[in-house]
Amino acid sequence: MTSGGALIAVSTWKAGRQTWLYQLSKAGKLCVPAMNVNDSVTKQKFDNLYCCRESILDGLKRTTDVMFGGKQVVVCGYGEVGKGCCSALKALGAIVCVTEIDPICALQACMDGFKVVKLNEVVRQMDMVITCTGNKNVVTRELLDRMKNGCIVCNMGHSNTEIDVASLRTPELTWERVRSQVDHVIWPDGKRVILLAEGRLLNLSCSTVPSFVLSITATTQALALIELYNAPEGRYKQDVYLLPKKMDEYVASLHLPNFDAHLTELSDEQAKYMGLNKNGPFKPNYYRYEKGFKTPHIDYD
Amino acid sequence: MTSGGALIAVSTWKAGRQTWLYQLSKAGKLCVPAMNVNDSVTKQKFDNLYCCRESILDGLKRTTDVMFGGKQVVVCGYGEVGKGCCSALKALGAIVCVTEIDPICALQACMDGFKVVKLNEVVRQMDMVITCTGNKNVVTRELLDRMKNGCIVCNMGHSNTEIDVASLRTPELTWERVRSQVDHVIWPDGKRVILLAEGRLLNLSCSTVPSFVLSITATTQALALIELYNAPEGRYKQDVYLLPKKMDEYVASLHLPNFDAHLTELSDEQAKYMGLNKNGPFKPNYYRYEKGFKTPHIDYD
Amino acid sequence: MTSGGALIAVSTWKAGRQTWLYQLSKAGKLCVPAMNVNDSVTKQKFDNLYCCRESILDGLKRTTDVMFGGKQVVVCGYGEVGKGCCSALKALGAIVCVTEIDPICALQACMDGFKVVKLNEVVRQMDMVITCTGNKNVVTRELLDRMKNGCIVCNMGHSNTEIDVASLRTPELTWERVRSQVDHVIWPDGKRVILLAEGRLLNLSCSTVPSFVLSITATTQALALIELYNAPEGRYKQDVYLLPKKMDEYVASLHLPNFDAHLTELSDEQAKYMGLNKNGPFKPNYYRYEKGFKTPHIDYD
Amino acid sequence: MTSGGALIAVSTWKAGRQTWLYQLSKAGKLCVPAMNVNDSVTKQKFDNLYCCRESILDGLKRTTDVMFGGKQVVVCGYGEVGKGCCSALKALGAIVCVTEIDPICALQACMDGFKVVKLNEVVRQMDMVITCTGNKNVVTRELLDRMKNGCIVCNMGHSNTEIDVASLRTPELTWERVRSQVDHVIWPDGKRVILLAEGRLLNLSCSTVPSFVLSITATTQALALIELYNAPEGRYKQDVYLLPKKMDEYVASLHLPNFDAHLTELSDEQAKYMGLNKNGPFKPNYYRYEKGFKTPHIDYD
Repeated sequence: MTSGGALIAVSTWKAGRQTWLYQLSKAGKLCVPAMNVNDSVTKQKFDNLYCCRESILDGLKRTTDVMFGGKQVVVCGYGEVGKGCCSALKALGAIVCVTEIDPICALQACMDGFKVVKLNEVVRQMDMVITCTGNKNVVTRELLDRMKNGCIVCNMGHSNTEIDVASLRTPELTWERVRSQVDHVIWPDGKRVILLAEGRLLNLSCSTVPSFVLSITATTQALALIELYNAPEGRYKQDVYLLPKKMDEYVASLHLPNFDAHLTELSDEQAKYMGLNKNGPFKPNYYRYEKGFKTPHIDYD
Repeated sequence: MTSGGALIAVSTWKAGRQTWLYQLSKAGKLCVPAMNVNDSVTKQKFDNLYCCRESILDGLKRTTDVMFGGKQVVVCGYGEVGKGCCSALKALGAIVCVTEIDPICALQACMDGFKVVKLNEVVRQMDMVITCTGNKNVVTRELLDRMKNGCIVCNMGHSNTEIDVASLRTPELTWERVRSQVDHVIWPDGKRVILLAEGRLLNLSCSTVPSFVLSITATTQALALIELYNAPEGRYKQDVYLLPKKMDEYVASLHLPNFDAHLTELSDEQAKYMGLNKNGPFKPNYYRYEKGFKTPHIDYD
Repeated sequence: MTSGGALIAVSTWKAGRQTWLYQLSKAGKLCVPAMNVNDSVTKQKFDNLYCCRESILDGLKRTTDVMFGGKQVVVCGYGEVGKGCCSALKALGAIVCVTEIDPICALQACMDGFKVVKLNEVVRQMDMVITCTGNKNVVTRELLDRMKNGCIVCNMGHSNTEIDVASLRTPELTWERVRSQVDHVIWPDGKRVILLAEGRLLNLSCSTVPSFVLSITATTQALALIELYNAPEGRYKQDVYLLPKKMDEYVASLHLPNFDAHLTELSDEQAKYMGLNKNGPFKPNYYRYEKGFKTPHIDYD
Repeated sequence: MTSGGALIAVSTWKAGRQTWLYQLSKAGKLCVPAMNVNDSVTKQKFDNLYCCRESILDGLKRTTDVMFGGKQVVVCGYGEVGKGCCSALKALGAIVCVTEIDPICALQACMDGFKVVKLNEVVRQMDMVITCTGNKNVVTRELLDRMKNGCIVCNMGHSNTEIDVASLRTPELTWERVRSQVDHVIWPDGKRVILLAEGRLLNLSCSTVPSFVLSITATTQALALIELYNAPEGRYKQDVYLLPKKMDEYVASLHLPNFDAHLTELSDEQAKYMGLNKNGPFKPNYYRYEKGFKTPHIDYD
């Protein structure tokens, strides 16, 4: 790396923090190269899909001891986190429906067996409302008013904005702290809504992160720092970069022995046929573990 | 579109054909704009993941009437097609393992509950061998020689190259056509390997394509042609383009009523918070339905 | 067996035929010992749960080529057959609900993640209606009148009584045979309901029975005949008997090598602790593969 | 109930305690009627299958924070508890195999997609060993010696006999209590086996019981006591009884509103066809939620 530069390898828990870097870069205010570790594939997949698939169950059990079987659940947002939550809850016998704003994700939810609904259509029947949208005010006071007694409300998505918790701080509602991270919000008619972690992230507040996931994250960060440090002058400018695919693959390969997984090696003939180097990278940088091609794009405004 | 130009909207069943366009384009021989419809998201997801999840079962049943429960199956390749095949077979009680060359896909297979193995380590125990790699000679004569009696071999991947069928056309092996698309290849000791569709694509040869999938494909093609025709002069040059994200979303939204799916609309405040237009596109063009950001890439060669 | 006696080993596809034997026996008209093979555990589990789990998909695909993903399906009856159908359809992305008359089975459906509904509440939204009740007139003309265009109706349960097909043979409805086993019944307004196998059993009419299942059935029948033939005089009287548990276990053990399954053997100490013979039977005769004890019962009338 | 009699309604967590009653009864030493509540269907299904499906995950998470995805797990015993454990772990991405002594249960495991193995064949590769056999010394010192570093060992089955914990109390092994209910047993070469709850029941020691399950159990007990108290003289003798089926169904029906489940009612015609009372019971007493008929049995020795 160029001397005198500072290293920045950003790895936040989930989306969000790294957008600041892009904004800095766009504004011309980023004074060193930066590596956006958060969006490397292994980081994304493990922290979001695979980790949330487990932590949604863990977080709910530790706080509420709820039984999942037969429960009616709405998951708001069918991105990676939403997919993980839906998959786990369905597997344990919950009856899950989904809200989405994006028709493609909505169609994915349909094909995965989840009814796509609007929150206000179903909120009255739900036993649990889980937000994973990355948006704000998804669960408004009006919706909270219509929930049934005992409904559990929690946030797996982003920051603490998804549930409008502020709207519950009004004189006619009573808050009762029944356990760490668990509040009963009580309506004048006695109805109780069970709010977890005051609307902050359930997986961070009420669950644990498996050491395996931390290992992946830490490995990715370390490799990013090494790459920035060792890179020949000029490779990285004052911009935000993704981890090169080959390093992403290297992080994965370092963790395969844990699963006693045996990788297949390409023969020379096969590598030539595929146009690949036998040692990888096996996918282009832009490949997000679904097929795609690097092509010119037209951006509609 | 500019007068005098020709329209090309390519939509092949699966990967492959569109690479010719990119080669033409790279060689400067593409004389009109072309739209690569195959790699639009709805096309990809429906033709590959969701359609193959069903056609692997359908193709195997119609040809062999095999019971899936308890069968030991190896799926070669854990891309979209492999993911669909693995998910369906596991759900019906098969015991599924996976081969992969890419450590990231291998790690995904682990997290989804599939043992990652080399084909030669397990081939002797398998009841079915299914290829979805896009590569050639994945199942060689040497591996076929080691399969057990009654092993079913078929290809869900790419062209007819994945199984080395030519190597089975030798004098000591007898071929017996037991049913349309089903050959018993008989070894001198009486062992029979059941080869489907002579190694061509099982889903095309032995299954059907649901009209719903065809509707998505045809809609995508029609929209691509309309876009090329209506585009203002200069929007498209002699290059290969992906369908704009907004149109991809439009294809999806046209099919949502089939599932009685109700999309949520962003409020003004939410759209502003997310930096989105309320009518979409909801994701950047490069988003492949896992999270990602458009960033500079360094290509290692 | 005692000389002069006849052997009867009954093995019908599913419930029904063997009740005649019990009625004969109750009326004192059974003149030889009979073995009710249908209700042996291996027969039950394989023909009903495990076989129907596959044949519901196979029967629907071969007749209609329908895509399962996202389809709204109601399964009437949550016994063994219904459990198999629900599990398979859910696994392939259908959105499944259930009707039941028995509160215990209804609660099981809830815990397995299926909404329990009345047919008339949901029939208007359904893409498929599947009967597995063993009852008659579950799908009446009134319900058929309310189905939406394109709804598929079929019977996995019992005989041809579950769908009131006779009620569709009226002048204002047109029948159109679109394919073997597939009729479009057309309402005056053009609505089409897709009726499979004219309401007869889908799995028998439109699917195949895997040879593995036939092997289990045939083995069970053969063992029953051998047992009746070899039994010492007096063991069997003019009554209906279930296959002794030990033989049921023997049928299973004969089929385990197909799956390369390795049974564990009890140590002497363990057998003593459990009060079991090391060679089985491992469960009492009345055990139905959920725990239970032979106890006096009080029958309420 | 007859005056002067005592009421006994036994409801232990899982199998075991009620066998004492049967032994007392067999020995002629039971001086009052007793109701074996443990083996009523709702109790069995909820405490064993449905509750353990959740508590295996909960118990493991709270004690070890382990990630389930990709882990190799062996579950010893494929009864109700084993079925619940296997289903949950598989759903969360673990690679699960099963040990069994009973060929019928082994065949069920195959059909559900689990490889059936002997513990000594696989123990070296396993990340977790879970016992649900009801037997003793299933995990012996010899097997513990062969486990790999970091293997988690726990008991979901019966009492504290399944893991031979006593064999680990030897001078060459060091015990380290790392957290409540979690011991590291350390071999001289540094290998650590993670033993949970010192081999006692994980679900009782390290998980919670959902209030829904307690409600079912308590309802069943209360109804049993009411039945014994109200029964006309002579209905119950000095013996052990199961809850009448009708009451079992009543317990279930009382809990259906929690799931907003809508039961279907038989028409008069249907009830007559089925030979059922419209108000139940809908199954004979001996029905264990798989089909069966009350028939004479021949018990081999």
